[in-house]
Amino acid sequence: MPELVFPLDSSKPFTDQQITGHNRWHPDIPAPVTVKPGDTFRVHCREWFDGAIHNDDSADDIRDAPLNGVHVLSGPFHVTGAKPGDLLVVDIVDLGPIPQEDSGPLAGQGWGYTGIFATQNGGSFLTEQFPDAYKAIWDFRGQQATSRHVPGVSFTGIVHPGLMGTAPSAKLLSTWNAREGALIATNPDRVPPLALPPLADSAILGSLTGDEFDRVAGEAARTAPPRENGGNQDIKNFTKGTRVFYPVFVDGANLSMGDLHFSQGDGEITFCGAIEMGGFIDLHVDIIPGGMDTYGVSENAIFMPGNTDPQYSQWLAFSGTSVTLDGEQRYLDSHLSYQRACLHAIDYLTKFGYSPEQAYMILGAAPIEGRLSGVVDIPNSCSTVYLPTAIFDIDLTPSVGGPTQINPGIGVPRSSF
Amino acid sequence: MPELVFPLDSSKPFTDQQITGHNRWHPDIPAPVTVKPGDTFRVHCREWFDGAIHNDDSADDIRDAPLNGVHVLSGPFHVTGAKPGDLLVVDIVDLGPIPQEDSGPLAGQGWGYTGIFATQNGGSFLTEQFPDAYKAIWDFRGQQATSRHVPGVSFTGIVHPGLMGTAPSAKLLSTWNAREGALIATNPDRVPPLALPPLADSAILGSLTGDEFDRVAGEAARTAPPRENGGNQDIKNFTKGTRVFYPVFVDGANLSMGDLHFSQGDGEITFCGAIEMGGFIDLHVDIIPGGMDTYGVSENAIFMPGNTDPQYSQWLAFSGTSVTLDGEQRYLDSHLSYQRACLHAIDYLTKFGYSPEQAYMILGAAPIEGRLSGVVDIPNSCSTVYLPTAIFDIDLTPSVGGPTQINPGIGVPRSSF
Amino acid sequence: MPELVFPLDSSKPFTDQQITGHNRWHPDIPAPVTVKPGDTFRVHCREWFDGAIHNDDSADDIRDAPLNGVHVLSGPFHVTGAKPGDLLVVDIVDLGPIPQEDSGPLAGQGWGYTGIFATQNGGSFLTEQFPDAYKAIWDFRGQQATSRHVPGVSFTGIVHPGLMGTAPSAKLLSTWNAREGALIATNPDRVPPLALPPLADSAILGSLTGDEFDRVAGEAARTAPPRENGGNQDIKNFTKGTRVFYPVFVDGANLSMGDLHFSQGDGEITFCGAIEMGGFIDLHVDIIPGGMDTYGVSENAIFMPGNTDPQYSQWLAFSGTSVTLDGEQRYLDSHLSYQRACLHAIDYLTKFGYSPEQAYMILGAAPIEGRLSGVVDIPNSCSTVYLPTAIFDIDLTPSVGGPTQINPGIGVPRSSF
Amino acid sequence: MPELVFPLDSSKPFTDQQITGHNRWHPDIPAPVTVKPGDTFRVHCREWFDGAIHNDDSADDIRDAPLNGVHVLSGPFHVTGAKPGDLLVVDIVDLGPIPQEDSGPLAGQGWGYTGIFATQNGGSFLTEQFPDAYKAIWDFRGQQATSRHVPGVSFTGIVHPGLMGTAPSAKLLSTWNAREGALIATNPDRVPPLALPPLADSAILGSLTGDEFDRVAGEAARTAPPRENGGNQDIKNFTKGTRVFYPVFVDGANLSMGDLHFSQGDGEITFCGAIEMGGFIDLHVDIIPGGMDTYGVSENAIFMPGNTDPQYSQWLAFSGTSVTLDGEQRYLDSHLSYQRACLHAIDYLTKFGYSPEQAYMILGAAPIEGRLSGVVDIPNSCSTVYLPTAIFDIDLTPSVGGPTQINPGIGVPRSSF
Repeated sequence: MPELVFPLDSSKPFTDQQITGHNRWHPDIPAPVTVKPGDTFRVHCREWFDGAIHNDDSADDIRDAPLNGVHVLSGPFHVTGAKPGDLLVVDIVDLGPIPQEDSGPLAGQGWGYTGIFATQNGGSFLTEQFPDAYKAIWDFRGQQATSRHVPGVSFTGIVHPGLMGTAPSAKLLSTWNAREGALIATNPDRVPPLALPPLADSAILGSLTGDEFDRVAGEAARTAPPRENGGNQDIKNFTKGTRVFYPVFVDGANLSMGDLHFSQGDGEITFCGAIEMGGFIDLHVDIIPGGMDTYGVSENAIFMPGNTDPQYSQWLAFSGTSVTLDGEQRYLDSHLSYQRACLHAIDYLTKFGYSPEQAYMILGAAPIEGRLSGVVDIPNSCSTVYLPTAIFDIDLTPSVGGPTQINPGIGVPRSSF
Repeated sequence: MPELVFPLDSSKPFTDQQITGHNRWHPDIPAPVTVKPGDTFRVHCREWFDGAIHNDDSADDIRDAPLNGVHVLSGPFHVTGAKPGDLLVVDIVDLGPIPQEDSGPLAGQGWGYTGIFATQNGGSFLTEQFPDAYKAIWDFRGQQATSRHVPGVSFTGIVHPGLMGTAPSAKLLSTWNAREGALIATNPDRVPPLALPPLADSAILGSLTGDEFDRVAGEAARTAPPRENGGNQDIKNFTKGTRVFYPVFVDGANLSMGDLHFSQGDGEITFCGAIEMGGFIDLHVDIIPGGMDTYGVSENAIFMPGNTDPQYSQWLAFSGTSVTLDGEQRYLDSHLSYQRACLHAIDYLTKFGYSPEQAYMILGAAPIEGRLSGVVDIPNSCSTVYLPTAIFDIDLTPSVGGPTQINPGIGVPRSSF
Repeated sequence: MPELVFPLDSSKPFTDQQITGHNRWHPDIPAPVTVKPGDTFRVHCREWFDGAIHNDDSADDIRDAPLNGVHVLSGPFHVTGAKPGDLLVVDIVDLGPIPQEDSGPLAGQGWGYTGIFATQNGGSFLTEQFPDAYKAIWDFRGQQATSRHVPGVSFTGIVHPGLMGTAPSAKLLSTWNAREGALIATNPDRVPPLALPPLADSAILGSLTGDEFDRVAGEAARTAPPRENGGNQDIKNFTKGTRVFYPVFVDGANLSMGDLHFSQGDGEITFCGAIEMGGFIDLHVDIIPGGMDTYGVSENAIFMPGNTDPQYSQWLAFSGTSVTLDGEQRYLDSHLSYQRACLHAIDYLTKFGYSPEQAYMILGAAPIEGRLSGVVDIPNSCSTVYLPTAIFDIDLTPSVGGPTQINPGIGVPRSSF
Repeated sequence: MPELVFPLDSSKPFTDQQITGHNRWHPDIPAPVTVKPGDTFRVHCREWFDGAIHNDDSADDIRDAPLNGVHVLSGPFHVTGAKPGDLLVVDIVDLGPIPQEDSGPLAGQGWGYTGIFATQNGGSFLTEQFPDAYKAIWDFRGQQATSRHVPGVSFTGIVHPGLMGTAPSAKLLSTWNAREGALIATNPDRVPPLALPPLADSAILGSLTGDEFDRVAGEAARTAPPRENGGNQDIKNFTKGTRVFYPVFVDGANLSMGDLHFSQGDGEITFCGAIEMGGFIDLHVDIIPGGMDTYGVSENAIFMPGNTDPQYSQWLAFSGTSVTLDGEQRYLDSHLSYQRACLHAIDYLTKFGYSPEQAYMILGAAPIEGRLSGVVDIPNSCSTVYLPTAIFDIDLTPSVGGPTQINPGIGVPRSSF
């Protein structure tokens, strides 16, 4: 294996490790590790809730998930010679669950979880229809995932990091805080909130302490959203073999990553929505000097996906348009039309015996595809969601004979406030 | 070939044909043709502007495109025995440009066009950045498309009908008119408009005449948006071999179709955005009695794509988030994030020598993929657009050497008001 | 459509057409049509037996198939400027069954056939196990094929020309006749024969007549085998979008083609083994001057397959080794190991209720893949054959529950001597 | 990770490990480990030459490779309840190089090798053209392989076990020895030999000792060829996610495996031809009682490949026919036609600057595909070999401009007798 430059011990919390990572974005979080262009190295990643979610049949831990503490990230890694204006070329050489640990209490030890957040603590893509918290545990067998909470489904995971990115410059950070603050100010009491402002509570900032910790904690950006530096893009296609080009905003680039997913559907619609886990990631880094300007890549990462995704050849697809459930016509709202497409898929799956929550979990965790199919046909956008039929034990296609019924089993654990 | 039940003569306008189709949705447009469950039949389709767009180097025809007259549709086809509540199963057996006609003045005779509408006459997905009208002509060679207006690009088309659907019931039509009217009322003078109300001008309603024509023309829905009946979904994956399940709202289903595309990228982002053409489509129909309730498919069509799409294995992908070009933070706006991803792709292509308009045309016409990658990471959604690198003559991947320059040639014709 | 340079009338035999093609290889068969590099043109092709096989339920026509008259080829086409030593670049732009003719007595009019030749008249890959003649009729619906003789199977055809090639030089022809004659001489009375010598009976040589006809007929090579000029390669991957590079041996290249197949499995194992049909093919030609030497392509064509093959993602595969059915060990015989793999697949399918002949037909006509998996592990080679499970109505995978039984229906017609 | 039931220490030879495996097939080799149906377990596998091949620039070790000692296999594994007549269902859950060991002297520690055997010691598929020994070292970076001996090529490996199988019954073993002995007897002095008889020298038989060792060593079959029990099939598609169904010939099935390959082309044509390595394999086993008869699987394994193979969409293919290099016509010899296709590919690659040996190495190690394209067109069979163009740094397609030249670098080490 490549040299392990950021080790984690599964039995210890994130802040008790040999090297302390971070859970905020700030240019002044020190890089504990330096790598060179051309290096290949291994990084351990902690599951994003630092072990707060358990392999059991209760959703209380999801309901009470410590959102202030996410995402626990490995890094930053200083890349020798990287300068603002460069592109950092990152190859995802390999990645997977925690190596050599097949069982244990930590997600990534042979299992992972998908959660639906309650509206009061995070919410989700379909939070109006699913206001409570739910959890599903998935067991790994090689690259296959199955769940005792969602019977009749098994699929090949497409392992990827949900979050990876470079550190922002002070100026860029300031821009983030200004624009997100302005949004929050339009409705500061909204539940779930419109955005997450800097928050000292639960902040982890590497080796920073004292006044410097306090200063940085008061400024540092939360890690929930994707931004110009990449960040929490949750792109399921960041699989093994992928090459990503990140803008560099600070000397050394200060690359960080975490939030590994065993599998995810496009959109990560349940919010805690992939199959979350800890694990390892092997990376190779290089630099294109001045690449941001040369290629016009200054605001968001570009990437080339790997070529070993699981192959499925038959899909059942659902469409949605930008009309609300209440019948209100919205103008070209692709977010809404994807919600409607997903709700149609969920309704359909319930006809086969799945509970709505089980169906929602499938859409969040399995390798479904979400497409922006039509974005101009006023007033309706058209989004579509594609389910690979081969992941189901039963025949999912419509027929004169009607739907085969599955046994939903114990269902997915639920917890409400 | 299957029996031709709806013939068109390329040399005559839509209203002078043996059978007159329609360009509005209404339950009372008579079905001129009846087919039975189990039948396979051929339908000719007129290009959506009825020949108003020419194979030349001016974009005036796009600027002045007669939007009131679209889409000229073939049908309705009455399917014997189909009843409200059923699912109509439609197989796209085959389709293509106008058979046996390889050259001529009509799109579909060996060529097609992609247009970017001007803001004053239709607009497009990126109309703020591209307020004028543009046109590109594409030549067909088998399933390959190339354009004298967009050099250095060739791709395998994924031929599909942009529009297909069943007739609405009177009640459903009333719902459409009410909800779209309410939206229009919020800003009735907007350019481009928020939605398109019923319009007697340029209406074509099959064999209807006189008072009945006037009544129906005053109520009938425009065909631009996709709705519960399918309609103008513009889903590029409706390729040969696809099976679609449509809700049935009226006796006989009254299926109609048109707006054939030689190729299209996800979103059809230039609005007139696929490679538009006339041609033929072979269909097979069947019925699942009571299927709407049995499968919970009452609001939008579901479908299973065909398995002969062109295969590409290397993609260059661009991401975007829901921050406006002016730096304003929007809340989980996937429409905006896809706009930003597309703009990033356009910026990137200009580094290789393409004009912005040429790049925009490529995104509209080539088999690009648009994904809803992250829809929950407040406040930013993350959308991604994937370009198959093999469609470019040059190497499109970033490198230390910098971008190879193409010769943009004559560029795409432009026309402004 | 491209200009039709070689028309055929479905109602007339091959020798009564406007232009007469040929069924032998010889440099002195005149080219009735000339095309230029850069041209795209359409060619009609006659089904290889010139209409001798009927859409009925008897295999007598297969038993008595007029083998002396095959393959009826379209051409030769003289390509302006092509010289010996060049590579002729041929793009398969499009192809399909007889255009606009969906029903009728000629294969290609909405249907095709697969035959198993009897040992006394041609034989097949498994002629020891299947000594009689059999026939299956396949019906086309778009790109899908089904057969009343082989129920429970449907698949997407991968249409391709079984035969295409350039004319041999006099020297090359002489080489062919010498080496094949030497082989025949080792066992001249074998049934089926080892090879087919020149034969004047049933020879068709374009416009040649009289003494010249007699001379050429006495020298011309039969079209059954593939050779240095391409010829009857029966490569199922010569689909739409394919580019082939042929060696040029005579001025003008003299390209000919025919033997269109609606679908075929690797190997075309039943001999009359694809789904045979007449139809059309659109070609584009170009030249790489001196390319034979430049690229070392002097003995056999090279090619780049198209990218629209039907996609299947689940396969059931069978292996075979080079041990005869009698238990005799042969040394690294990949021909034998593929026979054994095919026989294993046939045995397996009979467990589901198919007759051996039906199973054999499936392997011949469906898009199965045949691989040379191991060719060095003395003394056994290992060949494998892959069946796409999605083409079967039933679940074909082994399970504790045992095989589901299909209803074999009327079976495949048989005829013996 | 699954329970490790067969551990290996990379620093010790095969016979000094905690559990001793075997390198011969015999029913009386004791099973040191027992597993149950439904179990998932991890097995370490030694590279097939037990460390005799080094990561250096000499091919002497390939020339002198200790062929008598291969293949060092892990097992046998006794599966509780498996009985003769059953089918053993083996899932390849995961596999890869030696875990957590990225560098070191043993193949599998971050690197692997491909060898071409000399004619006097093993030979290869093209031994007449390549009579000497050659070696190429490949470096692993995640799933990618590159070689200092073969520049300009990199590819995604498709990791698989070259060898896996069940123990033969005494009767079956006797059949093997009889039929292979009969073949050897036809030319006992041939170099390379026709087959390999039982050989006590270098035999490893698990825990057997003394007279029992001597008896079994005198009877046990060599592991080189694939046979009815699976064995050394060298099927490159036995990738992660594959399910294999093996016939069971003895109580407990006695499953063994080894000969892991990081990558291989169809045929493993250089004999030592894949990228050879040690590593791990995770397996899941189950039983279909009586499945051999139920499904007619008694002579050779059947299997369903996994769905995560690397995807390539552009291929350059070469064809060959059954005519020898000396111009002799052979009758439908697919082994020969594949040799000719491979030689054509090698000739072609040399036009770009590769040495013939480098080209041969690429065909042996990269994920090329070998197809039995035509097997009935007397007297020539047609085999084809497909190279994925994306694995080459240069453009490999023929053009008027002629081939780009690579720098062949130091070339592949060579060693002759």
